Amino acid sequence: MAKINKDYTKLKSSYLFSTIARKVREYEAANPGADIIRLGIGDVTRPLTPAITGALHKAVDEMGEAATFKGYAPDLGYDFLRKAIADNDYRKRGCDIADDEIFVSDGAKSDSGNIQEIFGRDNVIAVGDPVYPVYVDTNVMAGRSGVYDESTGMWSDIVYMPCLEENGFAPQLPQGEKIPDIIYLCFPNNPTGATICKNELQKWVDYANEHESVIIYDAAYEAYISESDVPHSIYECDGARTCAIEIRSFSKNAGFTGVRLGFTVIPKDLKVEGVRLYDLWARRHGTKYNGAPYIIQRAGEAVYSEAGRAEVRDLVGYYMENASYILKGLKSAGYSAFGGVNAPYIWLKTPEGLSSWEFFDELLREANVVGTPGCGFGPSGEGYLRLTAFGDKDRTKEAVDRISNLAKTM
Amino acid sequence: MAKINKDYTKLKSSYLFSTIARKVREYEAANPGADIIRLGIGDVTRPLTPAITGALHKAVDEMGEAATFKGYAPDLGYDFLRKAIADNDYRKRGCDIADDEIFVSDGAKSDSGNIQEIFGRDNVIAVGDPVYPVYVDTNVMAGRSGVYDESTGMWSDIVYMPCLEENGFAPQLPQGEKIPDIIYLCFPNNPTGATICKNELQKWVDYANEHESVIIYDAAYEAYISESDVPHSIYECDGARTCAIEIRSFSKNAGFTGVRLGFTVIPKDLKVEGVRLYDLWARRHGTKYNGAPYIIQRAGEAVYSEAGRAEVRDLVGYYMENASYILKGLKSAGYSAFGGVNAPYIWLKTPEGLSSWEFFDELLREANVVGTPGCGFGPSGEGYLRLTAFGDKDRTKEAVDRISNLAKTM
Repeated sequence: MAKINKDYTKLKSSYLFSTIARKVREYEAANPGADIIRLGIGDVTRPLTPAITGALHKAVDEMGEAATFKGYAPDLGYDFLRKAIADNDYRKRGCDIADDEIFVSDGAKSDSGNIQEIFGRDNVIAVGDPVYPVYVDTNVMAGRSGVYDESTGMWSDIVYMPCLEENGFAPQLPQGEKIPDIIYLCFPNNPTGATICKNELQKWVDYANEHESVIIYDAAYEAYISESDVPHSIYECDGARTCAIEIRSFSKNAGFTGVRLGFTVIPKDLKVEGVRLYDLWARRHGTKYNGAPYIIQRAGEAVYSEAGRAEVRDLVGYYMENASYILKGLKSAGYSAFGGVNAPYIWLKTPEGLSSWEFFDELLREANVVGTPGCGFGPSGEGYLRLTAFGDKDRTKEAVDRISNLAKTM
Repeated sequence: MAKINKDYTKLKSSYLFSTIARKVREYEAANPGADIIRLGIGDVTRPLTPAITGALHKAVDEMGEAATFKGYAPDLGYDFLRKAIADNDYRKRGCDIADDEIFVSDGAKSDSGNIQEIFGRDNVIAVGDPVYPVYVDTNVMAGRSGVYDESTGMWSDIVYMPCLEENGFAPQLPQGEKIPDIIYLCFPNNPTGATICKNELQKWVDYANEHESVIIYDAAYEAYISESDVPHSIYECDGARTCAIEIRSFSKNAGFTGVRLGFTVIPKDLKVEGVRLYDLWARRHGTKYNGAPYIIQRAGEAVYSEAGRAEVRDLVGYYMENASYILKGLKSAGYSAFGGVNAPYIWLKTPEGLSSWEFFDELLREANVVGTPGCGFGPSGEGYLRLTAFGDKDRTKEAVDRISNLAKTM
C-alpha cells in the first residue's frame, strides 16, 4: 500500500494570496465599477525590451532550421550564458567566480526551493522573519520543521531571526543555543525592502565559516541596489567561497517572470563533510532537470549585451521611480514607510492600532488599493503591509495619492 | 555544522554516457577523419515545424508589448494548453480526464524525477529492468533504495521486473513476497522499444487497485504507437483513475527536447491514505515551481492546431521510417532486433558471446557507429545495444548498411 509524504500534510494552506483575491473579488462584486489598483503581487508589468525579443526571435529562427536546431541543452547551462553571467555579474565586480560555477535554471523560485535537497534532513535552518515563504515551506515538506505552533505562527525546529524596525529589518546573528546549519539570507529583502552593508554581511560570512554553516543567499533583487556600500553579491565578502551559495534571477531586472530564467552559484571550494556541494547540485541538475530552453538562454545572454544592459537599466529605473514616489509620498503623508531605495518593495507600517489585515481592508475599502498584509510573511510582519513598485507609473501615483488622502481622514 | 544528504553519495556516478563519449573521443583521436555515425543518444535532430515557430514568434511579439505582456504564468499551466491537452490526448480517445487534471511542466524528466517526492520514504518501488535511469536514481537520492550490490547491479530495497526476450521485454506482475507500493511503467518502452496491449495493461491497473499501489506511467513515446491494440494512455483502462499517474512529453513527438515542455496527469480520484495526490502535486508545483514559460506553452498549444498536428505527424513519420529501416535491415542481415514498431528505439541483441560493451567497441571500431550499451540501463540489458531512430535519414541508412556488412565478417 502506497504511503504519502506526511510532511506535505503539515503545510499550512497558503491562504495569503487566495484570501487577498477573495476579498478583492467580494469587494468588486459589492461595488461594481470600483477602480481598484493592485500593488500587492510582486510581478512585473513592463514588456520585454527589444534586445531581448530580438534575441528570442533569432533563436526561434535557429530552432526552425535543421542546420542550427538545438536539442537537449547542457544540464547546467550553455557556456555562452554561464560566461556572460560570470563575467558581468561577478568578475566585473571583483568576485572570483568561474564560468562553470554558474548553474543555469528556470528561476530563483525553483532553485531556492530545490537547494535544500542536497542537505540532510537533520539540519537546523534559520530564516528571517518576515520571509519569502518558499524557504520555510520547502523545508517543512522535507521534514526539517518540527511542529507548528498556532499561537506564535512558528515551527519548533526552525530558527527565526526577527527583522524589525529597531534592527533596520535585517536579521541579527543568532544568539540562542541553537546554531543554525543552513542560513537563508535575502538582500535586498523581500518583503521588507531592507538591505545590508558589506561590513554587516561580512559578519555573516565569518559566522558561517566559524560554525561550518552554509548561507543560502538570495540576491534576486540585486539590480535594484542604488547605494554604494550595499554588496551586489555575497562573494564580495572574504571567505564566502567556502560557505555561501548565491541564487539570482532574471525575473525582476529583465522582466522574466513569465520567461523563466535564473541561476545558482556554488563555488567549488564550498565543502560540507568533505563533499563539494558543487558536485551534489550538478548531480541533482543532471538527474532531475534537463536544462533551460535554448531560446530563453539566448534571451538571458541578450540581457548582458550593450543594448540589453541599457534597456534593462531603464526598466529597473522605471520601477525604482515608482518605489521612490511611493516611499516619499507616503512618508510626507505621515506614514512610516521603509525599503524602496535598494528594492522594489515598500514596507508600510500600519497606522496605530491596526493589524495588517485591518489596514488591508481599510485600504481596499477606502482607497481601492490592494497591498499584501505583512503578517502573511511571518509573525514579525504583523503591523505592516507590503506594496510593490512593479505597477504602471500613473496608476502607482494615483494609488499613493489615494493612500495619502486617506491619512487625512484617519 | 551543516550535513549533506548522504543518500546522494550512494549514487553510482553515471558513467554510461560519459564512458561512451570518452571511447568515441579516443577512437577519433586515434583515427582522424573517421566518419562516425551516432545512434546512441535519444535526442531529436529535425527542426521545429512552421506552426510551432510561428506560435513562438507570435508569443514573443506579445511579450514585447505592454498590452499583451504576460508575467508569472499560472503554476499549473495556462488554461488554453491544459484544455488542448485534455481534449486531444484524452477526451478524443475516450479517456475521462478534466482540463485541470493536467499539470503542465518543463518536461517529463523533471516530472518523473520529482513525482516521488509526494510519497513517503517508506514506499517500496518497482521498476522494469532495463529502465530509464531517472526512476531509480531519484529514489536513491530520496533514501528508498537500500544498499547497492555490485555483483548483481541491483539495489536491495528496489523490486526489479526483468524485461527479457521471453516476455516480449515487458515486465511481469510481481510474484515475490514484496508487494511494490509504487510501480514505474514506461510504454512504449525506453530503452527496449517494447509495448503492451490493452488487456495486459488492464492487469497492471487491476493489480494496483487491488494492492493500493500507485502506477507511474511514463508515456513519453506515445506518439510513436502504430499498432491498434496498443493503448496510448493508461486511462484507457478501467479503474486507472484511482491508481495511475501519467507523464507525457512534447520532446519526442514535437521535437521539444531543447524547448522543454511536458505534463503530468493526476486524476482527482487517486487517493493514497485518504489524501488526493492531486492536492500534493499541486502544492509541490505551487511551492517549488513557477510555471512553464508563456511562449513555450503557446508553442505547445500549436502542436494541437490543424497545421501542427499534420506537421508533427510527418515528423514522427520521418523518425519511424528510420526505425523501420533499422529494424528490417538488421534483421535481414541476420541480427536479432526488437522494438522499432511502436517506438523510436531498436533493441539489438549482441552477436553470440559478445557483451554489450564488447559489441559497442566492435561497432565503433569496425563500422564507426555509436550505440548505447544495454547494460547501462540495468543488469537485464546486458547482451543488448540500444539504437535510436532520431538521426538523419541518409546517415541512418548508411549506419545500417555498415552494421549489416559487419555481420558478414563475423
